[in-house]
Amino acid sequence: MMIKRLAIIGVGLIGGSLARSIKRAGVCREIVGGGRDEAQLRKALELGVIDRYEIDIAAAVHDADMVVVAVPLGAMEAVFRQIAGHVRPDAIITDVGSAKGSVVDAARAVFGEVPPTFVPGHPIAGTEKSGVEASFTGLFEGRRVILTPLPHTQPEALASVRALWQHTGAEVVEMGVEHHDEVLAATSHLPHLLAYALVDTLVRMDESEEIFRFAAGGFRDFTRIASSDPAMWRDICLANRAAVLSVLERFMADIASLGEAIRAGDSERILSTFDRAKAARDRFCRQENNNP
Amino acid sequence: MMIKRLAIIGVGLIGGSLARSIKRAGVCREIVGGGRDEAQLRKALELGVIDRYEIDIAAAVHDADMVVVAVPLGAMEAVFRQIAGHVRPDAIITDVGSAKGSVVDAARAVFGEVPPTFVPGHPIAGTEKSGVEASFTGLFEGRRVILTPLPHTQPEALASVRALWQHTGAEVVEMGVEHHDEVLAATSHLPHLLAYALVDTLVRMDESEEIFRFAAGGFRDFTRIASSDPAMWRDICLANRAAVLSVLERFMADIASLGEAIRAGDSERILSTFDRAKAARDRFCRQENNNP
Repeated sequence: MMIKRLAIIGVGLIGGSLARSIKRAGVCREIVGGGRDEAQLRKALELGVIDRYEIDIAAAVHDADMVVVAVPLGAMEAVFRQIAGHVRPDAIITDVGSAKGSVVDAARAVFGEVPPTFVPGHPIAGTEKSGVEASFTGLFEGRRVILTPLPHTQPEALASVRALWQHTGAEVVEMGVEHHDEVLAATSHLPHLLAYALVDTLVRMDESEEIFRFAAGGFRDFTRIASSDPAMWRDICLANRAAVLSVLERFMADIASLGEAIRAGDSERILSTFDRAKAARDRFCRQENNNP
Repeated sequence: MMIKRLAIIGVGLIGGSLARSIKRAGVCREIVGGGRDEAQLRKALELGVIDRYEIDIAAAVHDADMVVVAVPLGAMEAVFRQIAGHVRPDAIITDVGSAKGSVVDAARAVFGEVPPTFVPGHPIAGTEKSGVEASFTGLFEGRRVILTPLPHTQPEALASVRALWQHTGAEVVEMGVEHHDEVLAATSHLPHLLAYALVDTLVRMDESEEIFRFAAGGFRDFTRIASSDPAMWRDICLANRAAVLSVLERFMADIASLGEAIRAGDSERILSTFDRAKAARDRFCRQENNNP
C-alpha cells in the first residue's frame, strides 16, 4: 500500500503518533494536517510530524486518498460537515473515536448514510497526556485497533484502513459498533469516570489536604487516569451515554451490595468478591504479558 | 538507640522489610521472628531477614526490648493474647495495622487498658505482593509512617518507635486514631474496595472474556491494587468498617449524581467535576515528586 496523500484532521496525541508511525513505515508520500488549532499544527510541522497543514479542513482533505479524523468525539460531526463535498468520492475515511455509535450517527446525519468508504475505528492506546508534543512513534506498537465496519462498508476500504494500522505495529480486530461501545464502556469509560469521581469526592472532603498528603503509591496508580483530558472524557461519557450508564448502574448495585456485606460483617462474601477479582486481574495481566 | 532484641511477629512483606531495614541500619543485636507460618519463618531465616524464629509467640517475645506486631488486622487480638503475660513489662510494643481504631480496641480487650508502652503505628507503604520473598530493604524509604499515640502513651515509648521507623528512612508523623482511620479509608481502603469491585463487576458480565481482552494500560493501572492480598483487605474493610462505609456512601452519592448529569447531557457539570479532579490529581502528584 502506498498512500499518496494522507490527511489527518486533529494532530494531537493520537493523530500525531499515527503520522509519526506512518512516516517511519514509509508508506505515504505526503501527510497533511488539518484542524482549528493553528499553534498545534505549526508545532506538528516543526516537529516533522506532518509535511504541511491547512486550517481550512476542506483544503486539508483536498485530493487526499485517505482521511483520518482524529478530533474529540464532540467535534466529529462538525468536521464531517467540513469534509463533505470536498473530499474525493473514492477517498477512504476513518476516525479514531473512543465510542463508535455516536460517530456512525454523526456520519449518517451529515452524509445521509454512512459512506461505504467510511471505516469507523478505535486504537486502544493513549496516555494521560495530550497534544502533539506527547505524540510518539511507538504508541500503537503491540496495541489493539478495533475497526467496526458496517454491512455495506467497502471491503477495499476496510482492507486499506486495516493496512494503515498494521503499519503502526498494531493488531487490528473487528467487532460490531454496539459491542465495541459496551466493551469499552466497561474497560475504559467507566474506570475513567470512577477515577475522576473518586478524586473529586476526596477533594470536596474537609480533610482533603491531609488526605492527599497521605495517599500512597496505590492511590497514585488508581487515579492516574484522572489526569487525562477532562473535555475529551466528558465527550466520551456523553457520546457513549447509554453503555456507560448501563455499566455504571451495574457497578453501583455491586458496590452497594459490597457495602451491605461490610456493614453486616459478612466476611465470606467480601472475601469471595475480592478473591474472584484478584484471580481475574492476575489472569488478565498474565495474558497481557504473553501478548504485549 | 540500640535494640538488644527485636521481636517481629508476622514476617511477611512489612515485617520482613522492617527487619531488613533495621539490620542494614545496624541498630539491633538480634531480630527474632514469630508467627504461625513456619515455612514463612524458615524462608525469612534462610534469606537472612531474621536471626532466629519461634513458632510459639510467647517464646518469640521473651526478653525482647521491642515487639512489632506485623500480622493481618484479623489476627491482631489473638496475637496480643499470646503476648500478654510473656512480654517484659517495660517492652515497647507497636503494630503496623492499616486501621488503628480496631487495633486499639483489641489491645484494650486483651490488656484491660492500652498499655502505656504500646504505640499504634502504620507505615504507608506496600506493594500488591505479599510474603517475606517480596520484602526488601528500601520499602519504607521516603514513605510516611503514621503513629497514633494515646494520651497516656509513654513519651519514651513513642520516641523509640519513632526512632525505629526513622532508621528505615521513613518520615514519621503523628495523628489521632480516628483521624488516621478516616484519612486512610479515603485514600487507601475505598480505592482498594472500588478496584476489587470493578474487576468483579466486569468478571460477572457476559462478555467478560472480551472485556479483559480489550483492556488497555489505563485499566491495568486502575486495577493494580485489585491484585493485593484479598484476606488482608477483607480484614481492613471490616476493621475500619465505619470510616470505610462513610466514605463509600459519600462516593456512591457522587457517582449517582454524575450518572444523572450524564443522563441529562449536563456537559458543564461533567466537565467541572473532571476538571476539578484533574487539577487536584496533578497538584498531588507534583507535591509527591517534590517530596518523594
